[in-house]
Amino acid sequence: MNEHTVKAFDADIGELRGLISQMGGLAEEQIGKAMLALQRGDRALATQVRAEDKAIDAIEAEVERLAVRIIALRAPLANDLREVVAALKIASVLERIGDYAKNIAKRVPLIDDTGDRIEPISVLPAMGRMASEMVHDALDAFAARDSDAAVRVCESDTALDDFYDSIFRTLVTFMVENPRTISQVAHLLFVAKNLERIGDHAGNVAEMVYFAATGTQIADRLPAKS
Amino acid sequence: MNEHTVKAFDADIGELRGLISQMGGLAEEQIGKAMLALQRGDRALATQVRAEDKAIDAIEAEVERLAVRIIALRAPLANDLREVVAALKIASVLERIGDYAKNIAKRVPLIDDTGDRIEPISVLPAMGRMASEMVHDALDAFAARDSDAAVRVCESDTALDDFYDSIFRTLVTFMVENPRTISQVAHLLFVAKNLERIGDHAGNVAEMVYFAATGTQIADRLPAKS
Repeated sequence: MNEHTVKAFDADIGELRGLISQMGGLAEEQIGKAMLALQRGDRALATQVRAEDKAIDAIEAEVERLAVRIIALRAPLANDLREVVAALKIASVLERIGDYAKNIAKRVPLIDDTGDRIEPISVLPAMGRMASEMVHDALDAFAARDSDAAVRVCESDTALDDFYDSIFRTLVTFMVENPRTISQVAHLLFVAKNLERIGDHAGNVAEMVYFAATGTQIADRLPAKS
Repeated sequence: MNEHTVKAFDADIGELRGLISQMGGLAEEQIGKAMLALQRGDRALATQVRAEDKAIDAIEAEVERLAVRIIALRAPLANDLREVVAALKIASVLERIGDYAKNIAKRVPLIDDTGDRIEPISVLPAMGRMASEMVHDALDAFAARDSDAAVRVCESDTALDDFYDSIFRTLVTFMVENPRTISQVAHLLFVAKNLERIGDHAGNVAEMVYFAATGTQIADRLPAKS
């Protein structure tokens, strides 16, 4: 590549990274708002989360167009190509994370429609914060090309999985003791599951960051997972 | 493009289509096997489904490498580029569908561990077949570049969603009447949800097929969905 091409490529990559970071910020915000809507039974906020998901989808489409243009026009090699493909995949994962936040928001009116107080709802926001932090840390690792930070994200995923298992048991116990609430608590099971999946996807982003930064798979650095 | 380039491009696209169709076949098979494992409480089959998911992941990686190579070497324009990008995205959706089948398989040992007979498990395989057929039809639409078939796939998604709602109510009613089984039936809720998501993703594939074939969004041809 001549100097001009290198500069143009750097500018394109900078734009790509900017879009990813914007998507990530939105995804985190959406998780936070969805959990707040759930906790407060705030249907208006839930509706807003559902509407704002479209903004994330739109940025994903932009990332896709830009990545294809970079590959086609700049024909990047090895490391650079790996980074463009990573950005493309990370955008697709962030779009999924946005979907999970939207799914949580969709359940707000389904949970809130009776007078029964559902005690275990109070533990979910902490799980939401943990999942949202994982997304944040995975994107920080991407921005800093930091493979060690990526490893730490994958390690927190184990803690989130344990949190999920504990919440699952709590919710089932609550259902057994309060059969009137089963149908609403079933929705909370899905919320917890969505948060656990968000953590999985943050872990996937971390894996891609690790691969883009090192050219090797993170699995070789982590203990085997079931 | 000169004649040589056109031929090389056609060969590449043919290979890409072959890989997608192979992934789709595997994904359908995985759904079928996961549902059979669930119905029979067959843990060995469930373990096999979990192991075979890696084959789908491997083909996705191959699709990605090939698509990037096509874009970089052949610099396809407009329609052709749209098709390559569609293949890339369809592969990513099929990988997700494979994950859902794997998730269903993972629940087999969790459901099967008590002597309680869980009646409503018997309605799930029909839902599994419906979801699997949607995947099949979406890929047929892709292979035939058939935008009308794509529209039909999106229409069946509404029927699958209704099926899901009915199963959700059945399962919750069963929980209320058989509180001892709540924790296992909760896993069945997730199975039903996974099948519903598979249908959503088949619908997404159909949307991409429609867009690749017509250059317009399918939403303009379908009634608005909540």
